[in-house]
Amino acid sequence: MKHTLAVLVEDKPGVLTRIAGLFARRGFNIDSLAVGESEAPGLSRITITIDGAEHPIDQVTKQLNKLINVVKVRDLQPSDTVSAELMLIKTRAEGPKRAEVMQVAEIFKAKIVDVDRRTMTLRAVGTPERLEALREVLKPLGVLEVVRTGTVAIGREKS
Amino acid sequence: MKHTLAVLVEDKPGVLTRIAGLFARRGFNIDSLAVGESEAPGLSRITITIDGAEHPIDQVTKQLNKLINVVKVRDLQPSDTVSAELMLIKTRAEGPKRAEVMQVAEIFKAKIVDVDRRTMTLRAVGTPERLEALREVLKPLGVLEVVRTGTVAIGREKS
Repeated sequence: MKHTLAVLVEDKPGVLTRIAGLFARRGFNIDSLAVGESEAPGLSRITITIDGAEHPIDQVTKQLNKLINVVKVRDLQPSDTVSAELMLIKTRAEGPKRAEVMQVAEIFKAKIVDVDRRTMTLRAVGTPERLEALREVLKPLGVLEVVRTGTVAIGREKS
Repeated sequence: MKHTLAVLVEDKPGVLTRIAGLFARRGFNIDSLAVGESEAPGLSRITITIDGAEHPIDQVTKQLNKLINVVKVRDLQPSDTVSAELMLIKTRAEGPKRAEVMQVAEIFKAKIVDVDRRTMTLRAVGTPERLEALREVLKPLGVLEVVRTGTVAIGREKS
């Protein structure tokens, strides 16, 4: 099972190194990692996805909590979580291919963010699986470049 | 000036630690960092934004190029680049606030991804400035949680 860890940290040099180092030392393979601002000034949130079947998550969260500059660690359960990822994907789009890319963009609600004579670049948002599907559909046209943010997630409210 | 570095790396444990360590040792403050799959199997792309006014970027790219498992480093110029970031933002939305949040979501083309009696969660995509504007607009309602991916970027084609 995939695990998503939300790690709230102080904006201090070295905090990312210590966190990445903790995973590396234990040979844990991070699937994706995203660092961005949080709701609080001076705090960032690092979202890490990891394969939980391979790794004992409890131990990791315990170790993370002990690290300096780490404020809070949450292990988000997929069923109680809204998650999403952003992808920029550049594909060949010469001649008749252009209409095909436009069609695919519409189906996946992707935005066309750049176009020239030979290529088109789409911006898409969704689950990692959905982004993978988009990429598969564009593959036969000739995908040139893919940039992904990694997954971010937020807990659902239960009122 | 903000710089965006696109670093193509091999999927090996320790590569992120080495990169983060390089910035930390030099006291460079990373604004955001996103790690995701690239167009090539076995390779990931790390997108790093950094304040270039404070730091000599040429030296950083040179040092990055020397690191093990680093395949390619590009310093993307804002004028030749399409960039975007993803944000999940949870805000209070009791009673009449709900209509207000819906209105803001429409203006910012944000998607409502969760709602309960007291809160709403929006998913928005755009430049960091635009996401900041959305957050400012929601602030008076009571922002509870913010998760951001950090910026990703892709070079524009010039045909």
